[in-house]
Amino acid sequence: MIKTPTLLLDKDKCLKNIEMMSLKAKRHNLIYRPHFKTHQSLEIGSWFKSFGVDRITVSSIEMARYFSCEWRDITVAFPVNILEIDTINELAENISLNLLVESVESVRFLAGNLKSTTGFFIKIDTGYHRTGVSPDNITLIDDILRIAGTSDKLFFKGFLTHAGNTYLCRTKEEISDVHNKSLEIITSLKSKYKRKFPDLTISVGDTPGCSVSDNFEGVDEIRPGNFIFYDLMQLSLGSCTHEQIAVALSCPVVAIHKERNEIVVYGGGIHFSKERLNHPSIGTIYGQAAEEKEGGWGRPIPGMYVKSLSQEHGIISVPDSLINSYRIGDCIIVLPVHSCMTVSAMRAFMLS
Amino acid sequence: MIKTPTLLLDKDKCLKNIEMMSLKAKRHNLIYRPHFKTHQSLEIGSWFKSFGVDRITVSSIEMARYFSCEWRDITVAFPVNILEIDTINELAENISLNLLVESVESVRFLAGNLKSTTGFFIKIDTGYHRTGVSPDNITLIDDILRIAGTSDKLFFKGFLTHAGNTYLCRTKEEISDVHNKSLEIITSLKSKYKRKFPDLTISVGDTPGCSVSDNFEGVDEIRPGNFIFYDLMQLSLGSCTHEQIAVALSCPVVAIHKERNEIVVYGGGIHFSKERLNHPSIGTIYGQAAEEKEGGWGRPIPGMYVKSLSQEHGIISVPDSLINSYRIGDCIIVLPVHSCMTVSAMRAFMLS
Repeated sequence: MIKTPTLLLDKDKCLKNIEMMSLKAKRHNLIYRPHFKTHQSLEIGSWFKSFGVDRITVSSIEMARYFSCEWRDITVAFPVNILEIDTINELAENISLNLLVESVESVRFLAGNLKSTTGFFIKIDTGYHRTGVSPDNITLIDDILRIAGTSDKLFFKGFLTHAGNTYLCRTKEEISDVHNKSLEIITSLKSKYKRKFPDLTISVGDTPGCSVSDNFEGVDEIRPGNFIFYDLMQLSLGSCTHEQIAVALSCPVVAIHKERNEIVVYGGGIHFSKERLNHPSIGTIYGQAAEEKEGGWGRPIPGMYVKSLSQEHGIISVPDSLINSYRIGDCIIVLPVHSCMTVSAMRAFMLS
Repeated sequence: MIKTPTLLLDKDKCLKNIEMMSLKAKRHNLIYRPHFKTHQSLEIGSWFKSFGVDRITVSSIEMARYFSCEWRDITVAFPVNILEIDTINELAENISLNLLVESVESVRFLAGNLKSTTGFFIKIDTGYHRTGVSPDNITLIDDILRIAGTSDKLFFKGFLTHAGNTYLCRTKEEISDVHNKSLEIITSLKSKYKRKFPDLTISVGDTPGCSVSDNFEGVDEIRPGNFIFYDLMQLSLGSCTHEQIAVALSCPVVAIHKERNEIVVYGGGIHFSKERLNHPSIGTIYGQAAEEKEGGWGRPIPGMYVKSLSQEHGIISVPDSLINSYRIGDCIIVLPVHSCMTVSAMRAFMLS
């Protein structure tokens, strides 16, 4: 019985989501290297194995170490943190480790300090402007490749991008446009460098683009992560349907304020994270309640949103028609805005 | 040596902050019952003991259990979650436990299910409108007291409020006004009920009000928590000076983008939390860099703000004059927006 805020996972939905992306990868002849930062769990990671997945993506050296007991080919999709060189060397001795490089300083450090063969991708900024080398900066790309070439430990894997600007879109069409633009940019580098590096990999990875698009022309590998759970943000973008959302938080009702149509639940910022979404008609929301259903949950409930979060409290706006349906001691199922952040905050889950 | 995002605590500053609040409590003859949700650490909790603190506040039954090995008088300042009755009974058998009640349903449940003497406060909403009984709702207050009176286990401690609306203020004067208004409301209940309950306690607790005000007329107890660390939010409210901020995150530099005056650090939403602050001239910020100083940090650096956070990435805007001072592999010290959330996310600290 649930007594405190509890993360529910719908394993059937997760498996369907994994399979859907796996089939898409097969259809387009892509390497399927899912991002495991979304779940950070060996158990959930093992679900991917029956779909033939044997390569993964993570976002920190710490996560790479955690997964290295079961996974032998790991890309750390985060600009390499040279301060962690000792752990990098430990890992690279035991598994196929791939790092991300975007500066002369980092590649020079790696060239001088790696002890085992380590792959690296050059991170390309195809428009998100968070990290990465500008695709026009051929001088920098060539400098990185030249310095890497001086080391017998550094192995150039290819070009990698994360078109996170798909998260700024409002429709599937906009997502497709951003995705196509990103592909055009990164695959132009493939044409440029494939003579010298015939095996180079083009790796792309955001969940909106990989979910919505069927254009993977010139791409060799996809790295989406969030799609295993999806969430309200992906729903609002059009990347998924509500039936695909595979994670929710069950939150005990601790107070009911009928005079302002609000329910206070035990479930706050330390559980959901404070990730927010700008709902077109409601304003800022931090979650949305879903119908209860035998063995899981059903549709999101219109008008029933988490309107604010404190450390431990969640305040849910409830429509007039529903405010009398809840009692203190009930649990409300709430879909999170950003499943990666909620799952990372919760650290443990229950299969629904 | 710091290699990954690391929470730094300046113990001297913490002790000064603890002492400052302790002296204020003594001056006003108040019970000093600090909120331990801010640090959630037995070690840090022990620092309070030399200032005579022997009663504490927490925000969950789980935290009460954690601290119950060293602390014998604990108030859980969160509307009681009746689903946790078994743990409540375990705790109440061993320590002086105080709960918060704001409904007939909760008090009826407690009256029927408690096994040991348990204190309770009636939570009063003095204007924040998050939780609590409206002070005008004397019928509800009387109903709660009547039902509690039918149980020999429930012991009425008094009225408690959290004037969290001080966090919406912009100046010390506004904070004082909200604080005074809140006091006026809650102490009027004292006058009303003191004949029947001569020992009733009036408990107030937000850090802005307790930091800024010197009016505690009619108050018996204060429960501030955040003041041990303070943070950018408190600084922006005027509750503290920058010299009082006792917590910071040290974040490795992983990429530098001079073309847009940005540094990418290892330190994201899972480290800082996604708590944000609306800076009057800059817009939304998630942290601010501070000067490095032997054994700690100095002033916040003007214009050097965390402008966005992903799961693992922090993007720092850097002034022209400073962008050439940083190298990949350096660490940048960043003051958090909300220390309670950052410390809860980080779970471990290093004394600076």
